[in-house]
Amino acid sequence: MRRQKTQVVIVGAGPSGLLLGQLLHKQGIDNVIVERVSAEYVLGRIRAGVIEQGFSDLMEEAGVSGRMKAEGEVHHAVEIATYGDVHSIDLSGLTGGKVVTVYGQTEITHDLMDARSASGQQTIYEAADVQPHDINTDSPFVTYTVDGQQQVLECDYIAGCDGYHGICRPSIPEGVLKEYEKIYPFGWLGLLADTPPVNFELIYIKHERGFALCSKRSETRSRYYLEVPVDEKVENWSDDRFWEELRRRLPADAEKRLVTGPSLEKSIAPLRSFVAEPMQYGRMFLVGDAAHIVPPTGAKGLNLAASDVSTLYRILTKVFKQGRTDLIEKYSQICLRRVWHGVRFSWWMTSMLHSFDESDIEGRIRSSELSFFLKEEAGRRVLAQQYVGLPYEEIE
Amino acid sequence: MRRQKTQVVIVGAGPSGLLLGQLLHKQGIDNVIVERVSAEYVLGRIRAGVIEQGFSDLMEEAGVSGRMKAEGEVHHAVEIATYGDVHSIDLSGLTGGKVVTVYGQTEITHDLMDARSASGQQTIYEAADVQPHDINTDSPFVTYTVDGQQQVLECDYIAGCDGYHGICRPSIPEGVLKEYEKIYPFGWLGLLADTPPVNFELIYIKHERGFALCSKRSETRSRYYLEVPVDEKVENWSDDRFWEELRRRLPADAEKRLVTGPSLEKSIAPLRSFVAEPMQYGRMFLVGDAAHIVPPTGAKGLNLAASDVSTLYRILTKVFKQGRTDLIEKYSQICLRRVWHGVRFSWWMTSMLHSFDESDIEGRIRSSELSFFLKEEAGRRVLAQQYVGLPYEEIE
Repeated sequence: MRRQKTQVVIVGAGPSGLLLGQLLHKQGIDNVIVERVSAEYVLGRIRAGVIEQGFSDLMEEAGVSGRMKAEGEVHHAVEIATYGDVHSIDLSGLTGGKVVTVYGQTEITHDLMDARSASGQQTIYEAADVQPHDINTDSPFVTYTVDGQQQVLECDYIAGCDGYHGICRPSIPEGVLKEYEKIYPFGWLGLLADTPPVNFELIYIKHERGFALCSKRSETRSRYYLEVPVDEKVENWSDDRFWEELRRRLPADAEKRLVTGPSLEKSIAPLRSFVAEPMQYGRMFLVGDAAHIVPPTGAKGLNLAASDVSTLYRILTKVFKQGRTDLIEKYSQICLRRVWHGVRFSWWMTSMLHSFDESDIEGRIRSSELSFFLKEEAGRRVLAQQYVGLPYEEIE
Repeated sequence: MRRQKTQVVIVGAGPSGLLLGQLLHKQGIDNVIVERVSAEYVLGRIRAGVIEQGFSDLMEEAGVSGRMKAEGEVHHAVEIATYGDVHSIDLSGLTGGKVVTVYGQTEITHDLMDARSASGQQTIYEAADVQPHDINTDSPFVTYTVDGQQQVLECDYIAGCDGYHGICRPSIPEGVLKEYEKIYPFGWLGLLADTPPVNFELIYIKHERGFALCSKRSETRSRYYLEVPVDEKVENWSDDRFWEELRRRLPADAEKRLVTGPSLEKSIAPLRSFVAEPMQYGRMFLVGDAAHIVPPTGAKGLNLAASDVSTLYRILTKVFKQGRTDLIEKYSQICLRRVWHGVRFSWWMTSMLHSFDESDIEGRIRSSELSFFLKEEAGRRVLAQQYVGLPYEEIE
């Protein structure tokens, strides 16, 4: 058994864990990342691609925004199409100049892995049986196994950046967390292709056949989504069937511009809202998906993880440099205020745009709500302000 | 049997029927109002007291706004208190100068009855067995009984201003209307008293003991409401108990200013959302509560009736003067666009401020939503714009 000591053990080498590691490193705080799978596997995950202003500012603070600034696309607007009518939401005009950046999660992870290598901080990939211990004591540690050998990482704090299915959240004793959950009756069938996107701006589409989203990773890589029943199987969707169904849901102008091609990736993701409270227990902090999941409508998942990272890195910096241990218990409430706004916005965008029953009073109310928020400037302002992302809270 | 002929028979002498009659009369369109109860009974109904800008403009157009302008209170703001925090919503600042007028429904009815008498147009009170006939033909008529004698009112059109329990809506053949309904698990216990109101502005209160509303009719007449369970009995509420419970729900500053006194009226109203579509069948039009009910939170009920009256009077004027019978079938869709916005806003205000379960994910989402809409200027603007009332649609 090998024993090692560091200041912060970060569980999970996804974008949250890597970004946290980089920010702590820049503050001279030593950290080790342990990750269950390989770097290649992490990079293979096709996920988010819309980066809020606050997240891109944080990437800059971490010194990893160079390629994002060069290759990412700044978007000043987003489009929402309802039954063929296209509404353009002028994000920067409605928010005093704020924008979003379209840049794939895979690219972010790449940039962060490069920075990690350059930093000399240790990342342990393919670590089996990762397990936090003694998290409610002053000497927590994390064990894991490599080549059948158990290893011990002693530390001051543990950051659980290991996602919804990770080990950190279940390591908190029963009865501590309150969990909130909502499952939706549909999933998103996503297709990635090296074809020019149908539109410069993203288009969120409410259609009688179901929701669709025209997204993208670059000017040559498209990412499209179709709402499908929650129990749908990806095997039932040939590329041809996908393109045909997308074509039916597109507004007429966009449909004319659609370029199809072979899929690079195709998968179905269920839609879920989930929050665990509090996000801290003893010397362990939960970050991003480990504590909360939102449906992808509105692109808030990774962005909420980034604001957790920002909060945790600022708190840990004050803890290590100024002995501000009083902040440890504030982490959860600071994160959760912003998290609940994101949970609400994602739920709202989802319920506005997907195929819920429109024939009852609640369906009619939702239709009226969508029309109000798209047509009235005050409504568009509320939508835009949340889409570009609420500001991060200061840590006093 | 006495037969009489007029252009429009208006069923119901509440504020909608009286206002419609007055507006039609000013255009030289002859009309007769038939009302099931007495004028005194109509005047005894204690109802709404917050008048949107569009409604007060319509009262002016009808030539009946003199006393309202002299005695009504112009309100530039409304207050919303959540668990003790008082948020002032600057209605006029957030809407480019729009306001609401506080003036009781009873006073409006009074003014309209005076105008009706002066106009010489006929109003038949205490008409029994009112019944529309042949509404889907070119010769509709209304029958009623006075002193055991059946009377016949022949007409071109019938306006159903007779409320949710009226005869007009059920006179439309089965299968024509689609009805939408939502019942809430609580009611409003209202108390009217000749005591100075606790506050100049209205205060909507979200409190852990339940919703409360500080409303008023004038500087010397208060109208307070308490959320109570839907099956609560008014007999269980002595004046003392009411004042004591109100005191507990008031924000601290308001509580210090509370002046209590004997109730003039005390009653419990259930909360309901209801819409019947379409609002026109043949030569009969449904107006206000006959077609739609909203919970009172946000004070939209009478105001939605007023916008129906505005639409119907403008359409009938063009029908009689320009032969624009094409507009008849447009009445419903024009009204319903605005009605659904009102239904949604009333539902939203109700669900934000009342005692729904706050411990599940939907409750937490509602709390986050209320905090967003109260704290962010864009949110307050959305709230203010709907509270002062969306503009009436033009009739082309």
